Amino acid sequence: MSVQRLKIGIAGLGRMGKRHAVNYLHRTPRAEVVAAFTPDEDEQAWGKENLEPYGVRIYSDYNQMLNHQGLQAVVISTATCVHAEEALAAMEKDLHVLCEKPISLDIGTCDKVIKAAEARPHLKVMCGFSRRFDASYRDAFEKIRAGVIGQPVFVRSQTCDKHNPSDFFVKYAEHSGGCFADMSVHDIDLTLWFFGENIPVKSISASGIRAVHPGLQKFGDCDNAVGIVEFWGGKIAYYFCSRMMAHGQEDTTEIIGTEGKLVVNGNPQANLVNTYTNRGITREVPSDYYGRFEYAFVTESNEFIAAVLDNTKLPFTMTSALRAVEIGSALQEALISGKKIYFDESGNRIEKPSL
Amino acid sequence: MSVQRLKIGIAGLGRMGKRHAVNYLHRTPRAEVVAAFTPDEDEQAWGKENLEPYGVRIYSDYNQMLNHQGLQAVVISTATCVHAEEALAAMEKDLHVLCEKPISLDIGTCDKVIKAAEARPHLKVMCGFSRRFDASYRDAFEKIRAGVIGQPVFVRSQTCDKHNPSDFFVKYAEHSGGCFADMSVHDIDLTLWFFGENIPVKSISASGIRAVHPGLQKFGDCDNAVGIVEFWGGKIAYYFCSRMMAHGQEDTTEIIGTEGKLVVNGNPQANLVNTYTNRGITREVPSDYYGRFEYAFVTESNEFIAAVLDNTKLPFTMTSALRAVEIGSALQEALISGKKIYFDESGNRIEKPSL
Amino acid sequence: MSVQRLKIGIAGLGRMGKRHAVNYLHRTPRAEVVAAFTPDEDEQAWGKENLEPYGVRIYSDYNQMLNHQGLQAVVISTATCVHAEEALAAMEKDLHVLCEKPISLDIGTCDKVIKAAEARPHLKVMCGFSRRFDASYRDAFEKIRAGVIGQPVFVRSQTCDKHNPSDFFVKYAEHSGGCFADMSVHDIDLTLWFFGENIPVKSISASGIRAVHPGLQKFGDCDNAVGIVEFWGGKIAYYFCSRMMAHGQEDTTEIIGTEGKLVVNGNPQANLVNTYTNRGITREVPSDYYGRFEYAFVTESNEFIAAVLDNTKLPFTMTSALRAVEIGSALQEALISGKKIYFDESGNRIEKPSL
Amino acid sequence: MSVQRLKIGIAGLGRMGKRHAVNYLHRTPRAEVVAAFTPDEDEQAWGKENLEPYGVRIYSDYNQMLNHQGLQAVVISTATCVHAEEALAAMEKDLHVLCEKPISLDIGTCDKVIKAAEARPHLKVMCGFSRRFDASYRDAFEKIRAGVIGQPVFVRSQTCDKHNPSDFFVKYAEHSGGCFADMSVHDIDLTLWFFGENIPVKSISASGIRAVHPGLQKFGDCDNAVGIVEFWGGKIAYYFCSRMMAHGQEDTTEIIGTEGKLVVNGNPQANLVNTYTNRGITREVPSDYYGRFEYAFVTESNEFIAAVLDNTKLPFTMTSALRAVEIGSALQEALISGKKIYFDESGNRIEKPSL
Repeated sequence: MSVQRLKIGIAGLGRMGKRHAVNYLHRTPRAEVVAAFTPDEDEQAWGKENLEPYGVRIYSDYNQMLNHQGLQAVVISTATCVHAEEALAAMEKDLHVLCEKPISLDIGTCDKVIKAAEARPHLKVMCGFSRRFDASYRDAFEKIRAGVIGQPVFVRSQTCDKHNPSDFFVKYAEHSGGCFADMSVHDIDLTLWFFGENIPVKSISASGIRAVHPGLQKFGDCDNAVGIVEFWGGKIAYYFCSRMMAHGQEDTTEIIGTEGKLVVNGNPQANLVNTYTNRGITREVPSDYYGRFEYAFVTESNEFIAAVLDNTKLPFTMTSALRAVEIGSALQEALISGKKIYFDESGNRIEKPSL
Repeated sequence: MSVQRLKIGIAGLGRMGKRHAVNYLHRTPRAEVVAAFTPDEDEQAWGKENLEPYGVRIYSDYNQMLNHQGLQAVVISTATCVHAEEALAAMEKDLHVLCEKPISLDIGTCDKVIKAAEARPHLKVMCGFSRRFDASYRDAFEKIRAGVIGQPVFVRSQTCDKHNPSDFFVKYAEHSGGCFADMSVHDIDLTLWFFGENIPVKSISASGIRAVHPGLQKFGDCDNAVGIVEFWGGKIAYYFCSRMMAHGQEDTTEIIGTEGKLVVNGNPQANLVNTYTNRGITREVPSDYYGRFEYAFVTESNEFIAAVLDNTKLPFTMTSALRAVEIGSALQEALISGKKIYFDESGNRIEKPSL
Repeated sequence: MSVQRLKIGIAGLGRMGKRHAVNYLHRTPRAEVVAAFTPDEDEQAWGKENLEPYGVRIYSDYNQMLNHQGLQAVVISTATCVHAEEALAAMEKDLHVLCEKPISLDIGTCDKVIKAAEARPHLKVMCGFSRRFDASYRDAFEKIRAGVIGQPVFVRSQTCDKHNPSDFFVKYAEHSGGCFADMSVHDIDLTLWFFGENIPVKSISASGIRAVHPGLQKFGDCDNAVGIVEFWGGKIAYYFCSRMMAHGQEDTTEIIGTEGKLVVNGNPQANLVNTYTNRGITREVPSDYYGRFEYAFVTESNEFIAAVLDNTKLPFTMTSALRAVEIGSALQEALISGKKIYFDESGNRIEKPSL
Repeated sequence: MSVQRLKIGIAGLGRMGKRHAVNYLHRTPRAEVVAAFTPDEDEQAWGKENLEPYGVRIYSDYNQMLNHQGLQAVVISTATCVHAEEALAAMEKDLHVLCEKPISLDIGTCDKVIKAAEARPHLKVMCGFSRRFDASYRDAFEKIRAGVIGQPVFVRSQTCDKHNPSDFFVKYAEHSGGCFADMSVHDIDLTLWFFGENIPVKSISASGIRAVHPGLQKFGDCDNAVGIVEFWGGKIAYYFCSRMMAHGQEDTTEIIGTEGKLVVNGNPQANLVNTYTNRGITREVPSDYYGRFEYAFVTESNEFIAAVLDNTKLPFTMTSALRAVEIGSALQEALISGKKIYFDESGNRIEKPSL
């Protein structure tokens, strides 16, 4: 077989790691999964059953996996706290890296990774913001670029998870960085895509509640929150995030321009079926983000591999990914402190609003 | 008060008669309801309570009502079997007439009424096909006229009632003329509006079932039926009627043209509310035709009165109303006989299809 | 005629005054419009042509109208700046009052009117928040009351006008009180309906832009703005208002509860027609608020009259109307100052957020 | 690598053959495409460029491909006229077969293939009715099975292609078998799925027009047609097919039961974007069947392979596929002859309707 395929390793075989492994194995023709790493024994067993038959070697040590013969790239899907060190270790081995968002909740750590990547410009290093690869968001972006809505000036975007009555979300909050940093970061990333990644922030305010998960308080988090990000240059984004949706996942985005508006997923739906009964007309909704974005992840896999093999530009920069995390963290700070935060046009914090 | 108002009488105070009475009384500024007739004592009592306080005299004899001082027009909303004779009697008294559809299930009787109306061209005589006054159907008609869909060549239209578990529909079938004559006649009327009222029929076929009301058999009727009406000149309409909808009233029409298509009520809804729960996203549907067409009836009232007072043209002819009944009857015949019926271009029945 | 009808006068025959006059005249059976006042000569001419024939006397002096023989109630639809004095004058004449929102942009003035109304408890005095009478909002309210969505904790609501390329909105801004006070006040009123009218505000923040009407700056207004109102007790509302919608009027409300959510007008539409062409599937949208809320105004007229004639409770209090104006004004202040505003649980402003 | 993968050959690399080849190559983990056949030089060139690098040998002779070392199954996607002989030849070589629908337009030929398959029960032989693998249709089927709509008694289903102004459809009609046999056959197949594959036909009627492609007349075909299939046992299906849709592909199915109804694709859409401009709110529609059913084909590939490797039951029988073709042919006959066709309960044609 004369096809060149990129030899990759998957780090982490948790919920999303498993999906990545399957996608790279079976739905990414130009990738060859040769190795996978997980410190978790159950996950190792899953890997032995589901990946090994396809020639994937399962490792319990990350650095050993990096030494796998011929490995060219790593997909990092472990816990957030080890993303940065794993990315740095991979780059040191001269490997390309796709790292699940966020690289780190600590801006300084993110910066270190970005600098390391800049020092190795021949490597492709990408942070996984899946919505950038979703067909509907891409259609919206193309329409904006084609001028269909004039100048985009306002974004409303929400990331809303289905209610989980267990303590899953509370436990998860301990390490998630908070709802804005964990959920809205996708909406912020979209905003930077639509408004331009260098647009400076002018002010940030936020408010939230704990309606169904009071236990979130000890981690400084909320189960429903809304925030406003005002940008210099006359643009504004506002975000809602919730972990309390009864009906399922509902990630909706509106981009409002001077001559029109685009709505992505204004009518959430799991499929094309409507059920008419004596209760009315009902449609179902995806129960989680993977139900909504499954094919975006597949596109992400294929495009990351193509960028490496063909040495083409990645669809967005690490700096943009960093900015999304920064804005998410500032929203989280505004949420917890209750205070509005102001910035000058150079990005420095200031005490009073600029008028 | 110097405003000229048309003095009208309402014949029949059943379900629809009551609605007509209230509409003419309270929502038709240029009408003055001066009289109402009903042979039914309960309905008379309702009239005394709800109409008399507004100056409406209640009659138990139709002919006495016709002699009411100054009466100018009659709205006939009694049982179908007396429509024709009441319309004729009113015309003899030189009164304008709005008669609920159908004038009669007997074509000869319809014809007699039409001839009587033609003999008194100064009178406005109209058959109440309410959908002609509905804002959405009018918008569709205007768009067709404006060429938005090219030449209209195919119509799909359905009249579907909410399921009623009682024997209401079975009893009703005894005098209704059957589902095509009673329900689809509205869809046929719309077709004549969109295709032109003189378009000749080429063939008619139909099939139906009794899924929930086996008792309909004794009246030669079905609870769900579909029929095809092929017209000379390359146009076709097909109709579905049902009395078995779990969710409510669903009257949908598609007009398919050579360059586009219009859909009226493709997404039935009772109002603008959607409810999101763990069952999905649900909207409710009107429970009967009045929930869907209430304001069409109000527009009908006002336009009939205006046509009389201003001596302007009625929006459609009695001949068109007759044709709708004729086609409905032929569909009913095809349904019961199981046979396809053929016509030549002059409207005569023939034995074999013209190719 | 033995029906008791309430004799009312209409103050103001501008755009909305004309509509009120027609609704009370022709669509409010228990009302009798006996008088109308306007200082404007064109409007007087319109009144003479359209109202006088129905027995309505046209006045050019408000106080003379108040002395009209037998007058029982006044509907005030003049410029905002005279609402309060006209309401007070009517009450002094012992007349019932329906006053268009807002009573005044000045809270003290509002308070004076409320006190005057409280001093005459036999009078019905209502502020016209039309959405309270809309069938869809009422359905949503009933569903909330029935527990369909659990405890309502978050409201998203927007009032968005169709773009008007002329300087209409700029001129209008001079006296409107600003976009939050003029537009979002409806959304705030809905929030108080859903959350309870006495719920205390905890914080308010807002941001806005001037994307298409830079001239708004001189009146301290924006053409697109978003604001967050945080309430004590763990509830939050956020509002978007815009005067820049290309497609038409879009007033949408989401009420998010602990067990579900209700969306009112998530899919705006002018009627039930969808047009399928080579551009895709298109539906149209109402071009202004009256296209959306016409029948809410008719219901408002009928219910106000019924409350007076039957001496029943009005659907909401003047105090609630005042609170909506207060919150709208505070949002406007937050918008212009750029500062977040904090309140303690008793409603006093405080310097720092309460945590 | 210890994974067992089925070695398959693709016959035909036309529009759909290319898609099959790519799907089996890149989206069907348990399949290994080892060979492909096409008599067409351009298609061979495409195969050399796109398949050969992945180890696929390209053949210009079908029988040579059948002799490819280790070949286990063939996917037949050539012109309809050679489907049957190729299927028979493959079975003689003891190969499993997935054959694009229809096997043949000639019932006798279909029968021969079915008999050959029955004689080799160890072989999996399937006809490719893609909608059986579509997630939405499957959801509908599961809901029917779960009793959500009571007894299914009526089906409305349509297959509507985007208008193609060239003579493509006319040329295509020469060998397609006509619109009912080519397009509605999918709707018929769905009907047999929902009603039961052995349900006997009672009557068939149809009407059609040539609105935009008059050239279809020479092949006895229409560009828009409607047909009714009445079944014994009180069930009816009606079908609309069109090659004239301005907006795109629109394949819609309603299954109406005694207690509810299911609608699949009542609101066609290409993705989740809605565009709001001064023309209204617009969404786009897939331009062809592959835009609608792409993932159904992928599921079909994977399930066919799984059935072979795991020796499990195929999701539907060859007999069902034959019946769909039979009914489609009868509809086509009714369309062209203009006559209604009747059957007794044993499937024999009769002259007059059974009542």
